[in-house]
Amino acid sequence: MDQFERLSQLPLRDDLRGQHPYGAPQLDVPVLLNVNENTFGVPADAKEAIISAVAAELDGLNRYPDREFTVLRQELAAYLDHGLTEDNLWAANGSNEVLQQLLQAFGGPGRSVLSFPPTYSMYPLLASGTGSSYIAGQRAADFSLSAESAAEQVREHAPNIVLLCSPNNPTGTALGLDVVKAVYEAGEASQAIVIVDEAYTEFSHTGTPSALDLLPGRPRLVVSRTMSKAFAMAGARLGYMAAAPEVADALRLVRLPYHLSAITQAAAVAALRNSTSLLANVEAIKVQRDRIVTELLELGLTPAPSDSNFVFFGGLENPSEVWEALLAQGVLIRDVGIPGHLRVTAGTEAETSAFLTGLRAILGA
Amino acid sequence: MDQFERLSQLPLRDDLRGQHPYGAPQLDVPVLLNVNENTFGVPADAKEAIISAVAAELDGLNRYPDREFTVLRQELAAYLDHGLTEDNLWAANGSNEVLQQLLQAFGGPGRSVLSFPPTYSMYPLLASGTGSSYIAGQRAADFSLSAESAAEQVREHAPNIVLLCSPNNPTGTALGLDVVKAVYEAGEASQAIVIVDEAYTEFSHTGTPSALDLLPGRPRLVVSRTMSKAFAMAGARLGYMAAAPEVADALRLVRLPYHLSAITQAAAVAALRNSTSLLANVEAIKVQRDRIVTELLELGLTPAPSDSNFVFFGGLENPSEVWEALLAQGVLIRDVGIPGHLRVTAGTEAETSAFLTGLRAILGA
Repeated sequence: MDQFERLSQLPLRDDLRGQHPYGAPQLDVPVLLNVNENTFGVPADAKEAIISAVAAELDGLNRYPDREFTVLRQELAAYLDHGLTEDNLWAANGSNEVLQQLLQAFGGPGRSVLSFPPTYSMYPLLASGTGSSYIAGQRAADFSLSAESAAEQVREHAPNIVLLCSPNNPTGTALGLDVVKAVYEAGEASQAIVIVDEAYTEFSHTGTPSALDLLPGRPRLVVSRTMSKAFAMAGARLGYMAAAPEVADALRLVRLPYHLSAITQAAAVAALRNSTSLLANVEAIKVQRDRIVTELLELGLTPAPSDSNFVFFGGLENPSEVWEALLAQGVLIRDVGIPGHLRVTAGTEAETSAFLTGLRAILGA
Repeated sequence: MDQFERLSQLPLRDDLRGQHPYGAPQLDVPVLLNVNENTFGVPADAKEAIISAVAAELDGLNRYPDREFTVLRQELAAYLDHGLTEDNLWAANGSNEVLQQLLQAFGGPGRSVLSFPPTYSMYPLLASGTGSSYIAGQRAADFSLSAESAAEQVREHAPNIVLLCSPNNPTGTALGLDVVKAVYEAGEASQAIVIVDEAYTEFSHTGTPSALDLLPGRPRLVVSRTMSKAFAMAGARLGYMAAAPEVADALRLVRLPYHLSAITQAAAVAALRNSTSLLANVEAIKVQRDRIVTELLELGLTPAPSDSNFVFFGGLENPSEVWEALLAQGVLIRDVGIPGHLRVTAGTEAETSAFLTGLRAILGA
C-alpha cells in the first residue's frame, strides 16, 4: 500500500481527496529565480540588529508572547507612513495567514471569494480551506484588468470578498487605483470586503500609488503586504495588513491566540527599524527587472509590464522544455502552467545574466 | 460610534457576531501563575545554542524556509523516542495550529468534534473556526472520565473527531490508556480521528504512560504535544503531533505553505538538541505542584489529582473574590469559570509560596 492509498483510507474531508500539497519544487541549484525571493539577502547591519533583538527575547521565552504584538503594529504603521496607527495594523505568519484570517472572518460556507486569474495561486486554496466558494473572474487577452470590466464582474457575481493582486502575481503588473475604487464601489451592494494584495509593491515603478491612499473612508478596504520580498525576509514569515480598526478587531475573533511568536515579533521589529538598509537593494533589483523586460523583447518574446521583482513572459513554443533546459544549466525559474509562458525572478546582476545567457542559448538566438 | 458598533457594521460571518477575542488577561504583576507557563525560563546554555542557531539562519533569511522542516521533524522523532521517524511527525506555530490543521483536514462543515468539558477552552473555538459542529461530552461529578463512559458517548454521538486532553486542562488529571483505547475502538464505526492532547505530559507522575505507546496499528490516533510547557518556550510557538505518516500527509493538504519560519525551525531544533538542560526544572516544578495539592488539602480545599504543572482546586465559596484578592497581592492565577474552583500554575518555590501564603491570608486560615 503506497502513501496515497494509505491517505485515501483516512476519513479525509471529501474536497481534499485526490489533492496534492501546494508548493513549488524546492531544488538545490545555483541560481534560484523561481519563487520571487529577494536574492540579495539580509545586509550585515540588519542581521546584527535582528540577532540582538532575538537574544533579548530569550530571557522571557518561557512566557507567552504579547498576543497583541503592539510594538510590531506600531513599527508597521510607521513604515507605511500613511497616517496610520497600530489600530489599523494586523500581522501574521506570512500574508497567506493574514488572508486566511480575513477569509475566516468574512468568508466561509455560503460565502464567495472573487479574484481574477491568472493571479496568486493560493487564492482558490485559501477559499477552499475556509469553506468559501471561489469565483474565477476574467481578464483581457493580454492579462490586463480594466476598472469597467472588474466592476461589472463584481456587480454580476456579488461576492463577499474580492481579492485584487497588485502588482499581480504571476503577471507582475500593478493595477491602477481606478480599478480598486471601481471594485470597491461595485461591491457596495454585496458589502464586499476588497483586499488589495500588495506583496510586491515596493518594486513598483516610481510614482505608482498604493491602495493605502484609498483607505480613509473605506471600511471594507484592506491592503495586505509582506516582509518576504522587498525586505528579503521570506524565511521569517511576516505578512501584515492595513485597514480600518474594525477589520483588525474582526481578525482578533478568528486568530489563534499567540499566533505570532516572540522571536518573530522581535525579528520583524528589528528589521523595520533597519528598513533603509534592508530596502537598499530594491533599486538594483528593479534595474535587473527592467533589463529582463528589455532583453526578452529583443529576443522576440512578450514580457508583461512589471512593477514587481519578476517578469512574466510569453511567446515560447514549449515553455516546459525551456524550463527543463534552464534547470539543466542550474537556473530554476517558474512554470506557472499558462500556455506559452514562464515567470522569472529578477536576481542579482550575475544571476540575471545567467538566466538571460542560458535562455539565449536555448532559443538559439 | 464605539469599537463594537463599528465592527457590527462590517459583513462579519454570522457566528462571529457579538463574540469577544479569546485569551486570558495579560497583566504585568510580580507572580504570573495563570497560563501554565514554565516559570523557570530557558537555561543559559540552551539560550546560547538557540542564539547561535538563529544567527546561522540569517544568511539565508531571504529564502523561503524548508517547507517540510525535515530536520525539525527528525529531532522531534528522536526526542519522543518511541520508534518514530520524521514521517510520523508534524509541527506548527503552537499546538493550537496543529489542532486547527487536523480539524481542517478531518472536520469541517457537516462534521463534528467531541470533547469532554471542562477541558481546554480552545476546542470549541477551533471547531467553530473550521465550521465543525462541537459536541460537549459529559464527565463524572469529580471531573473524571472512565473508559466505559467515554466509549459510550463516542458510540452515541458518532463524532468525526474526538479530542482527549491528557493531562486534562484545567483539571490537571491524566487519562488512563484504557480510556484512549476504548474511545479509539468505539470510534471505529464513525471512523473517528482520536486526538490525545498531551501538552502537559512531561509533568506526569513517574510511570504514567503516553498515548504514543498506542500509535502502532492505530492510523486514526494522533498524539499532540508542545514545546510551550516543559521546554519553557511558550514564546517560541512550537506545537507538534505524532501519528501514522498518512495523517501528516493529510495535514500537508491544508497547511499554508512555509507555515513554520526558518527561525522557528532553527530555535526548536537547537532546543531539542539541548532538551536535557531545558527539561532540568521539570522535577522541581512537579515538587511544587505536589506541594500545592498537599497544602490545599490542609486548607480544606479539594484539589484535583494533577499530572500537569498546575492544580485545579474546588471548595471555594467565592472564587472570583479570591482571584481578585490574590491579584491585589501581585499573584495572578486563573478563574476558568467553573463554580467554586480556580486554577493555579506551579511556579518556582518562591512563587508557589507567594500563592499559598496569599491564599491562606485570604481564607483566614
